[in-house]
Amino acid sequence: MCSASNRGVVYMGPGHVEVQSIAFPELALGKRKCSHGVILKVVSTNICGSDQHMVRGRTTAPEGLVLGHEITGEIIECGSDVEFLTVGDLVSVPFNIACGRCRNCKEGQTGICLQVNPARPGAAYGYVDMGGWVGGQSEYVMVPYADFNLLKFPDRDQAMDKIRDLTLLSDIFPTGFHGAATAGVGPGSTVYIAGAGPVGLAAAVSAQLLGAACVIVGDMNPARLEQAHSFGCETIDLRQDATVPELIEQVLGVPEVDAGVDCVGFEARCHGCNHHQEQPATVLNTMMEVTRAGGGVGIPGLYVTGDPGAVDDAAKMGQLGVRIGLGWAKSHYFYTGQCPVMKYHRQLMQAILWDKVNIADAVNVQVISLDDAPNGYADFDEGAATKYVIDPHGVVAA
Amino acid sequence: MCSASNRGVVYMGPGHVEVQSIAFPELALGKRKCSHGVILKVVSTNICGSDQHMVRGRTTAPEGLVLGHEITGEIIECGSDVEFLTVGDLVSVPFNIACGRCRNCKEGQTGICLQVNPARPGAAYGYVDMGGWVGGQSEYVMVPYADFNLLKFPDRDQAMDKIRDLTLLSDIFPTGFHGAATAGVGPGSTVYIAGAGPVGLAAAVSAQLLGAACVIVGDMNPARLEQAHSFGCETIDLRQDATVPELIEQVLGVPEVDAGVDCVGFEARCHGCNHHQEQPATVLNTMMEVTRAGGGVGIPGLYVTGDPGAVDDAAKMGQLGVRIGLGWAKSHYFYTGQCPVMKYHRQLMQAILWDKVNIADAVNVQVISLDDAPNGYADFDEGAATKYVIDPHGVVAA
Amino acid sequence: MCSASNRGVVYMGPGHVEVQSIAFPELALGKRKCSHGVILKVVSTNICGSDQHMVRGRTTAPEGLVLGHEITGEIIECGSDVEFLTVGDLVSVPFNIACGRCRNCKEGQTGICLQVNPARPGAAYGYVDMGGWVGGQSEYVMVPYADFNLLKFPDRDQAMDKIRDLTLLSDIFPTGFHGAATAGVGPGSTVYIAGAGPVGLAAAVSAQLLGAACVIVGDMNPARLEQAHSFGCETIDLRQDATVPELIEQVLGVPEVDAGVDCVGFEARCHGCNHHQEQPATVLNTMMEVTRAGGGVGIPGLYVTGDPGAVDDAAKMGQLGVRIGLGWAKSHYFYTGQCPVMKYHRQLMQAILWDKVNIADAVNVQVISLDDAPNGYADFDEGAATKYVIDPHGVVAA
Amino acid sequence: MCSASNRGVVYMGPGHVEVQSIAFPELALGKRKCSHGVILKVVSTNICGSDQHMVRGRTTAPEGLVLGHEITGEIIECGSDVEFLTVGDLVSVPFNIACGRCRNCKEGQTGICLQVNPARPGAAYGYVDMGGWVGGQSEYVMVPYADFNLLKFPDRDQAMDKIRDLTLLSDIFPTGFHGAATAGVGPGSTVYIAGAGPVGLAAAVSAQLLGAACVIVGDMNPARLEQAHSFGCETIDLRQDATVPELIEQVLGVPEVDAGVDCVGFEARCHGCNHHQEQPATVLNTMMEVTRAGGGVGIPGLYVTGDPGAVDDAAKMGQLGVRIGLGWAKSHYFYTGQCPVMKYHRQLMQAILWDKVNIADAVNVQVISLDDAPNGYADFDEGAATKYVIDPHGVVAA
Repeated sequence: MCSASNRGVVYMGPGHVEVQSIAFPELALGKRKCSHGVILKVVSTNICGSDQHMVRGRTTAPEGLVLGHEITGEIIECGSDVEFLTVGDLVSVPFNIACGRCRNCKEGQTGICLQVNPARPGAAYGYVDMGGWVGGQSEYVMVPYADFNLLKFPDRDQAMDKIRDLTLLSDIFPTGFHGAATAGVGPGSTVYIAGAGPVGLAAAVSAQLLGAACVIVGDMNPARLEQAHSFGCETIDLRQDATVPELIEQVLGVPEVDAGVDCVGFEARCHGCNHHQEQPATVLNTMMEVTRAGGGVGIPGLYVTGDPGAVDDAAKMGQLGVRIGLGWAKSHYFYTGQCPVMKYHRQLMQAILWDKVNIADAVNVQVISLDDAPNGYADFDEGAATKYVIDPHGVVAA
Repeated sequence: MCSASNRGVVYMGPGHVEVQSIAFPELALGKRKCSHGVILKVVSTNICGSDQHMVRGRTTAPEGLVLGHEITGEIIECGSDVEFLTVGDLVSVPFNIACGRCRNCKEGQTGICLQVNPARPGAAYGYVDMGGWVGGQSEYVMVPYADFNLLKFPDRDQAMDKIRDLTLLSDIFPTGFHGAATAGVGPGSTVYIAGAGPVGLAAAVSAQLLGAACVIVGDMNPARLEQAHSFGCETIDLRQDATVPELIEQVLGVPEVDAGVDCVGFEARCHGCNHHQEQPATVLNTMMEVTRAGGGVGIPGLYVTGDPGAVDDAAKMGQLGVRIGLGWAKSHYFYTGQCPVMKYHRQLMQAILWDKVNIADAVNVQVISLDDAPNGYADFDEGAATKYVIDPHGVVAA
Repeated sequence: MCSASNRGVVYMGPGHVEVQSIAFPELALGKRKCSHGVILKVVSTNICGSDQHMVRGRTTAPEGLVLGHEITGEIIECGSDVEFLTVGDLVSVPFNIACGRCRNCKEGQTGICLQVNPARPGAAYGYVDMGGWVGGQSEYVMVPYADFNLLKFPDRDQAMDKIRDLTLLSDIFPTGFHGAATAGVGPGSTVYIAGAGPVGLAAAVSAQLLGAACVIVGDMNPARLEQAHSFGCETIDLRQDATVPELIEQVLGVPEVDAGVDCVGFEARCHGCNHHQEQPATVLNTMMEVTRAGGGVGIPGLYVTGDPGAVDDAAKMGQLGVRIGLGWAKSHYFYTGQCPVMKYHRQLMQAILWDKVNIADAVNVQVISLDDAPNGYADFDEGAATKYVIDPHGVVAA
Repeated sequence: MCSASNRGVVYMGPGHVEVQSIAFPELALGKRKCSHGVILKVVSTNICGSDQHMVRGRTTAPEGLVLGHEITGEIIECGSDVEFLTVGDLVSVPFNIACGRCRNCKEGQTGICLQVNPARPGAAYGYVDMGGWVGGQSEYVMVPYADFNLLKFPDRDQAMDKIRDLTLLSDIFPTGFHGAATAGVGPGSTVYIAGAGPVGLAAAVSAQLLGAACVIVGDMNPARLEQAHSFGCETIDLRQDATVPELIEQVLGVPEVDAGVDCVGFEARCHGCNHHQEQPATVLNTMMEVTRAGGGVGIPGLYVTGDPGAVDDAAKMGQLGVRIGLGWAKSHYFYTGQCPVMKYHRQLMQAILWDKVNIADAVNVQVISLDDAPNGYADFDEGAATKYVIDPHGVVAA
């Protein structure tokens, strides 16, 4: 049924990705059989902002790494210990690889599984320092601990009809939702979301799904702001000569929100200063200014422990100038870290299947072929207000 | 400033209410000055299903009781200890009277304040056994502990524009929301709501606001079901010759929901049996059938400690035949009791003011004059799919 | 290393258990290999109050059933998919069998796993209607989904020193803890625990561990009350001619507690009436009397869906006369169901290993041989204030 | 009944406090009557570590400020709106002044009340930038919003017997508890507490009350460590030539804990470097090293928005070099801010009254006269392992 050939997007060094022939996946982990795994034919696989950190050369990612951690696929082979899934099932793959057997997984913290990465808690497909797993921007990929990790769509045809939305369950929709939820967003909340890239837009949709009264999105990219505006968000353009509290006050009448979500992370840029130079804690510090006393800050935006391209020595080791005194005075709380996708993906699938959210339109999904992936990387890096979804087998458009 | 005349809806015995002249309110509690109170000119005041329990003679309510616990008004006089409100403020009054100073109030449990009812925890305006407070289906009413209890609308004009919605913040919108929230409804949930009266409809709107994927409402009144259908709920008509699990399975493909909300209470009727006779635990028991293992049941529907008109001696003291064995086998949890309105009203006001919900349309608000209140009671008792809002000063229509 | 012989406690009909030769366990489920399972040499296995329901003939348990769901053991063989445990590990087995791969398991609700019992959610070893799994009151037993289910003790020698305590992690310590935790017990709480059998005593220890200020235990068995008194509980003897609220008032000065825990269940007896006849809802109804408004009731005591020996037809199907009107007036909440042991066992193991609790002394553990199990059943049934721990290989005393 | 004379501890400039005659308190706020207030005869009032920040000249506190925010007293006069307290009641005063009527107070966030400090949310007695309220290290003091703020001890004689413990309910016991609770400490937790001053010791007692398995306290002051050891904590001496993870590993076998509590704040000193120079983020950064992935960090230690004596310009505005990249990689969460005392004081009072904690012994309470207060300040500043409790009327010893 499946040929032995496979092709994938490979990191070739800073600024350079290529589609190459890669090995066909096997149900094996090194020399050991991986009887809890499955082989997927990839139905869709998305380019993520965090892939860009690697491609821009901001990490120690090795050349030859097969990229891709946002994967949706069809099972074509099951290991002998897979009990509750079968060949033909259409499934969403959480980007966090998780064993389902360690303390953290049992507590629902699948983003920091203790058993799948010898270097530290937490693993992902196709990502530097995340356990060495092969990525899924490819035709075929192996997924371990399949019964635990995978979310099966209840109906194939219904799922293919909504695949542009469902493909976002592997990462950015849950990641945005995690940011909003951990910031304490609920019915009636006012929310400020920093960053109108795909995660920021997903956080905005999530805040709406959580019942927020008013969702304000800030960015310096007008096309991305327009995207946020298209589904009912208020927007503030950070290129203006005004502070974020002032801009928020223009919307709300008060310069503060109930909850803040940082969807930018460590590559943040100064918006008031010349040339928008990098200022890695600026979004965090803005969050403490604009979040009301007692409010929460969700931080799905990535902060790293090592950044060779950082502006100073402290930032190179992930130490940033944080206005913790301000946060303390306002009794803020802060939630950080990778989203444990499994905590949310079933519920968000239900919201999609029952037409409660249009996440694909919100983030402007564009479906491209595998061969177009390098162009997708380049356009996204230039700020396209687009979420690129790779369709390796040409089945999504059909 | 204010005239000394006042008129209100008075309970005159089973099946009988009248609009009569009543005393103009004073800032006093018995002989003691009530310096923390305010006098309100009532802007709107709603007829509630729980008022019907009294009017039907199912309680020991005394003749002469001024009815009404759903009140919105304008402050016309403040006691000397009122610090953060002022004459002219437009405010929503939670139906629970709360001191803001006892253990329960400090813990947010304002529905069971320990200081405002000598007989038991919890009080309300114009209600039997709830502390003897004068009701607010009238032109003027006194509200104690005003700084604590009242929710001020931020802008008068904006508020008057949305007064048909905002009037529902005093009771049924928070009450429905409490039912949905305590049942564990969240993004992606499937929900069954028993009863399509105003509280059931408010619970349905609330479940949607909380992100539910599918909200199913059951009733035997087709007009009320049509009301539920009008804002996107699935409906099941309980007059059919099928069980509730079967009817739910027709909608969802499975006979269970994630969460159940009982918006009926002790006057429940058997829907499979002859003449729809009263069967006070039938809704509770249905909830245990249709709620999935591990799910929650919210019970905003009223169950009482004494019911002179009950079907048997046990029911007369509030003891019902509950299938607790079934609930236990499914690890259900149950939340009961009056809604602590203050826990929710600010957030729901924000949802209204930012156009996230249309609660007035959902429950079919009809504005009537004070003199029409007796007709409103009668129509509502006959099952009108309507929420009657009394406008004692003729200012809502204006 | 392991012989092919095995012996276990077998249910032979009402009032009758025997130790018999039984099959040696295999890593198989029917005809399918169970590669995720392990074979345990049983180190200790306890007699549980819920076993008595079967032995008394109050269930439809089939003759020939091997009993026992409270198991601690040493791994002597691992299936090929077991990755994080190894031969020689000493482990505690949660009585709930759980797949670790279904929605409920992922949400931490291992007591109602969807995949291990075709009849209903939830399974257990050696128990009627719980999936048909072989019990562990035996020399050897098979445990499926071992990586997920088992709790490994960090150090063998330390564990054997405390095995009388650690053996209680498989059921009653977590079960009692679950009752206290779901009732909302926390630092400073006052608590009423109905029933001074092993689960009640475990709930009392748990309430203390959770920081309760005053734990009151009620029973009609003076030896069991003495047991509760031995570790600092207040006790009330329900044979007295006084109501429970009155007896609580003698201790606290008020007739109510912050939280109530029902550790009795459906075989409750009337304590004010003649001959202490069975009155299955009496404990539940007492809880509503004595729990303060706004308080919670945890219900680890078993309520069943079918009870052939019940006092009336309604009770035979698990429908009991519950004073829900009273609970509703007091805004109570109720948590029911089997304890999901995995949610608590690691933490409680830590409390044992760091000498924060002496659970074995609290419940009066008595170690007996496998051959003495039938006597243990008989003594326990007569109300011995004892928790019987079977030591099938004679290693505990050593 | 009460004379018109009053004496209190007054800040006279850096390093200098004096006992002086001060005004006798009145039931007034400026020119307005304060009918919700009471006058207290101070029974005990404690010197707090945060007072030292002012006395050391690390703030902009004005000369002439009457110090003291940890107050226990007897009511000698009630305003006319005080309904549930009376003359003669013995009460604990939460250090946070709170109106009980604003959004934050209603949500239980009394540490950031919106109405009692024009400059920012949150107020306290006798503290710079906290609303200008007169402190309580004095013979008499006024407390506003008395019904809301005060915790009445149920029995005077019992309370006077335990006054050395109960006096700690006004601040440090709840503050330490808040740190432990917000860090997620629960039954079975392992905890690292930085700082063995009174708040650190109170956090350690609290962690034990919450059921922690092992509480490790770190400091550089051997007398304070001895204090921690005296009630069962493990201790690590930070003067050693080893890292904190290494020292923790010596206790636990692993270099990480489940939860971390920073009880030091911005005046933290480097423990590995020369002369223990100030390094304001060192404790925060250590917390991210030693807290396990997924764990929480409670931060009751004070971080400020302005620090004239800071080591650099960034720190002068409360901006510190925080290793947020490390925290993010470990999915940590952080809770900051003043403790909302009212959330905990009743429960902790119960724990004291029922002999579940010996907080006074744990923090080594020493009772001194009002005239000895300046000496107490000096000794405490030099690192005395003592909590000084001022007894202005000589009633505690009696």
